[in-house]
Amino acid sequence: MAGLRVNQDRLWSTHQEMGRIGALPNGGCCRLALSDEDRRGRDLFIEWCLEAGCDIRIDRAGNIFARRPGQQPDLPAVATGSHLDTQPHAGLYDGIFGVLAGLEVFRTLNDAGIETQASLETIVWTNEECVRFPPPTAGSMAFTGLLSFDELHAMETTDGTTVGDDLTRHGYMGEAFTIKEHPLACFVEAHIEQGPILEGEQRTIGVVTGIQGARMFSVRVQGQDNHAGTTPMGMRRDALTGATAMLTMLQQLAPKDDPVLRLTIGRLDVRPNAPSTVPGEVYFEIDLRHPDDSVLQTLEETMRQRIGEIGADAGLQVTFEEICNVPPVAFDPALIAEIEAEAERTGYPHMRMLSGAGHDAGNLATVTPTAMIFVPCENGISHNEDENATPEDLASGANVLLSTLLNRAGRVA
Amino acid sequence: MAGLRVNQDRLWSTHQEMGRIGALPNGGCCRLALSDEDRRGRDLFIEWCLEAGCDIRIDRAGNIFARRPGQQPDLPAVATGSHLDTQPHAGLYDGIFGVLAGLEVFRTLNDAGIETQASLETIVWTNEECVRFPPPTAGSMAFTGLLSFDELHAMETTDGTTVGDDLTRHGYMGEAFTIKEHPLACFVEAHIEQGPILEGEQRTIGVVTGIQGARMFSVRVQGQDNHAGTTPMGMRRDALTGATAMLTMLQQLAPKDDPVLRLTIGRLDVRPNAPSTVPGEVYFEIDLRHPDDSVLQTLEETMRQRIGEIGADAGLQVTFEEICNVPPVAFDPALIAEIEAEAERTGYPHMRMLSGAGHDAGNLATVTPTAMIFVPCENGISHNEDENATPEDLASGANVLLSTLLNRAGRVA
Repeated sequence: MAGLRVNQDRLWSTHQEMGRIGALPNGGCCRLALSDEDRRGRDLFIEWCLEAGCDIRIDRAGNIFARRPGQQPDLPAVATGSHLDTQPHAGLYDGIFGVLAGLEVFRTLNDAGIETQASLETIVWTNEECVRFPPPTAGSMAFTGLLSFDELHAMETTDGTTVGDDLTRHGYMGEAFTIKEHPLACFVEAHIEQGPILEGEQRTIGVVTGIQGARMFSVRVQGQDNHAGTTPMGMRRDALTGATAMLTMLQQLAPKDDPVLRLTIGRLDVRPNAPSTVPGEVYFEIDLRHPDDSVLQTLEETMRQRIGEIGADAGLQVTFEEICNVPPVAFDPALIAEIEAEAERTGYPHMRMLSGAGHDAGNLATVTPTAMIFVPCENGISHNEDENATPEDLASGANVLLSTLLNRAGRVA
Repeated sequence: MAGLRVNQDRLWSTHQEMGRIGALPNGGCCRLALSDEDRRGRDLFIEWCLEAGCDIRIDRAGNIFARRPGQQPDLPAVATGSHLDTQPHAGLYDGIFGVLAGLEVFRTLNDAGIETQASLETIVWTNEECVRFPPPTAGSMAFTGLLSFDELHAMETTDGTTVGDDLTRHGYMGEAFTIKEHPLACFVEAHIEQGPILEGEQRTIGVVTGIQGARMFSVRVQGQDNHAGTTPMGMRRDALTGATAMLTMLQQLAPKDDPVLRLTIGRLDVRPNAPSTVPGEVYFEIDLRHPDDSVLQTLEETMRQRIGEIGADAGLQVTFEEICNVPPVAFDPALIAEIEAEAERTGYPHMRMLSGAGHDAGNLATVTPTAMIFVPCENGISHNEDENATPEDLASGANVLLSTLLNRAGRVA
């Protein structure tokens, strides 16, 4: 089995073929969740799985369960998968790699005539990306009981339809089951890193130990609009001056050499945003991530207090609100160790790391042993048509996935 | 003559009547330059001036010259005026006061049966506000030779017409003359302050000694978009972090207790402005004003150098460009002294001050003795439906204007 390897060229060409659905001019693609393009991507995946001898099951969230039956079909399935939906200007790999790596594992096992004790499953989760409707990772939330089917179906999309309408229209309104009725032995998700660490460290495999906790906050700073030419500096209540002091304080909370803390102000709006008007209002959002929830809690309290103080000192009104709180996820230690051992055995340079982004695996971790395998992506870029990965790295990730799943499912001698 | 006073109620009701043209729901009005509403405002003003016995002349910029003939009609006219066009959400006083105060001076002189040696003129300048087309103060630029009629007529408006089209359509394409063919003895513009100084100092009359010089700069800071969750702090090229350091430096250049320097960052755009993306680009504009051009020059050089240094230290690309440079204007010392003496004589609390905003008087000052009279406006607010002034303050300004013009034109004994 040491010699069993996925077909690198086939894995690569499968990505390219999927990428032609919703292709964009600069080499990327766009398949927003439950759009016509997403349906065509789903249909193509099912066609490939049927050719590979799989059984297909669809749930009421439109999640697709492609099963390669084991010799003991009553055992819980050993599962992998990710998502086929994309951001508006996406590459060919984010999510898609985790789905097509599962398919490639099936094809490789078929080529080698290998059967397993437990069934294997490759799962396509609905709406990981949250572009047409919230929440992100909606499909895996429904499957793991974190979101009801009714809540999901009632969600309105940006096109004015509901998710229920879309599922019905596309023929993806499936059966009512969750993980209770459809148990999984474990879940291993392969994914591009979406960050620069593996590339920087020259490692091929990221053994993902968990997902950072994320909290988001909104800050609204209110002063007074005034004429830039006529209002003396001492008579201004300039919201941007206050916000600048807040941003400086926040940046000091996240030193450059902290290996895990992430603090980002990605959105900032100035109002009225006129060149010759002292700005009366600034709104910004803080994205804070750390693997330790107690660190997040301490930082939140510090931010709330200091932002309030800066506002009060400057005569500005400030509101500080938490708009999102996703606790950190720790993956299954045994599964982490197995992935690490397989990466070592297959000879790929590897490292343990945290995921900075959220993934469907975060929901699965609440109900079944779960872990992730990362592969490098060029310059750490994703959610962008420039997203890229090498055929070799994708195949390496799929090989570690192959041996991990095979260990867990039990090869039939 | 010490007892000669304008009719406060008439001046006030004239403002309210003009404000009904282009009236907005919250008490303000909208008469964009050369719009249908502006034409109706112009027509009403001309109707009032004809009733007051004036001669009307219109130039090829659509500027309206309402002349109350003196006994020596060959003398250059003693002029006042301002503009009737407005910002989109304007009040009833910015510009309009300077026009209607001139009309009220004529009416007051008529009521008292007073004639002057030189003619008096109230001038309505076209497009002071620069909303539908550039440049601001276009009409007075054309009259003073700073802009040719051809250039002005070729300007495209936001409605897809040209200024020439609009002037013709509204019947305001007048004769080809400038100040060379239509000399003025002097120009005195009355205006609301558009700032908080008079109100804060509890003065009724601002004796305006000049207009601050203004320079505007654009700064573009370019780093790299990255995922907020996956990109370690030390591997970021965060344009907003760099811009924050630049803003902090800029704010330190303009201390709270500087009485004349104005430094404003009114516009700032973050791109892509997504909550979970490290911002790859920030664009902002700096509005810098000071009465001393050498101070502006020194500050520009300091800003350019330090912003470049901050960008280089942070690994960011920076462009710094001057987008506007309006030199300071010094008004005529003799006219300033006369206005101050009249304010003193009539008993109004007064102070010398600079104008932080640009005005048509700035153009006139390049060709004829010029000064301005400011009156307070509530909370310093203008360019806003909340703009407000009191009937008493407007009348006070008109009274100082009345006696200043009468002195200059020479009362017929």
